[in-house]
Amino acid sequence: MANEQDNLRYLEDLYVGARFKSDTHALDTEQIKTFAGQFDPQPFHLDEAAAELSLFGGLAASGWHTAAVTMKLLVTGPLKIAGGVIGAGAELSWPMPTRPGDVLQVESEIVEIVPSRSRSDRGIVTLQVETRNQRGDVVQKMLAKLLVRRLVKNDAK
Amino acid sequence: MANEQDNLRYLEDLYVGARFKSDTHALDTEQIKTFAGQFDPQPFHLDEAAAELSLFGGLAASGWHTAAVTMKLLVTGPLKIAGGVIGAGAELSWPMPTRPGDVLQVESEIVEIVPSRSRSDRGIVTLQVETRNQRGDVVQKMLAKLLVRRLVKNDAK
Repeated sequence: MANEQDNLRYLEDLYVGARFKSDTHALDTEQIKTFAGQFDPQPFHLDEAAAELSLFGGLAASGWHTAAVTMKLLVTGPLKIAGGVIGAGAELSWPMPTRPGDVLQVESEIVEIVPSRSRSDRGIVTLQVETRNQRGDVVQKMLAKLLVRRLVKNDAK
Repeated sequence: MANEQDNLRYLEDLYVGARFKSDTHALDTEQIKTFAGQFDPQPFHLDEAAAELSLFGGLAASGWHTAAVTMKLLVTGPLKIAGGVIGAGAELSWPMPTRPGDVLQVESEIVEIVPSRSRSDRGIVTLQVETRNQRGDVVQKMLAKLLVRRLVKNDAK
């Protein structure tokens, strides 16, 4: 659709301070155990009784599951980047666990935009990303560096 | 098993410079598309033809998929931490894409150990984690901060 195409953002379309809010994602016990079984097979992500005795004090999602759901909410969210959401790197922390029944939502803000010196067709956008549960508690903080295309104008000669 | 129990490491058992090497994990197209469909639904992770035209120049795994497989290799690897592998935070970068057919392996090294000042029963271990493919190329670098239990001795009085 022409309309969707129009919404794709290049580096020049973005500005520091721009904020975006995602849709929500409801996490349940089955999703938590399925992800953990594949990627983080530890008792506190797989078994309620074992989780009670762990540092988490109850079943908790893998932090990588929270990160993956955050990515889904970013990709399907309102910031549509030309060429896609391509991460060069990220800093993550998990201030508190994600629990079964949590409904996650992502709020992000552009905090830095740096055009590449060596490649005139791109730049790095730093996005501050907070993932919250339905009570507003931050379950993940992330600073993500995204590779974003520039609108390259044919201005040679 | 008593033997497995004996291998569980507390903060006091660890030292800076200790190195660990994981098992391997073979990634195929189906795994890449399944993960991306759930968590990173972008054309370059889902469709070969679209991926050819993208910055990746071919189908690539989501960086979060590489991170999740890295976690699996850490958790199932030789460093068995008492209380489990619990991340407080991580810094990640993806120097090159992970491709269908890649066989991933994780090498990690303890680079810092800091006992908590406020909580005598724990500390933070910083682990430098490199995920390589079968050619030895680093596809992910990570500095992970892990929460590790101390052997608390009852030395009051």
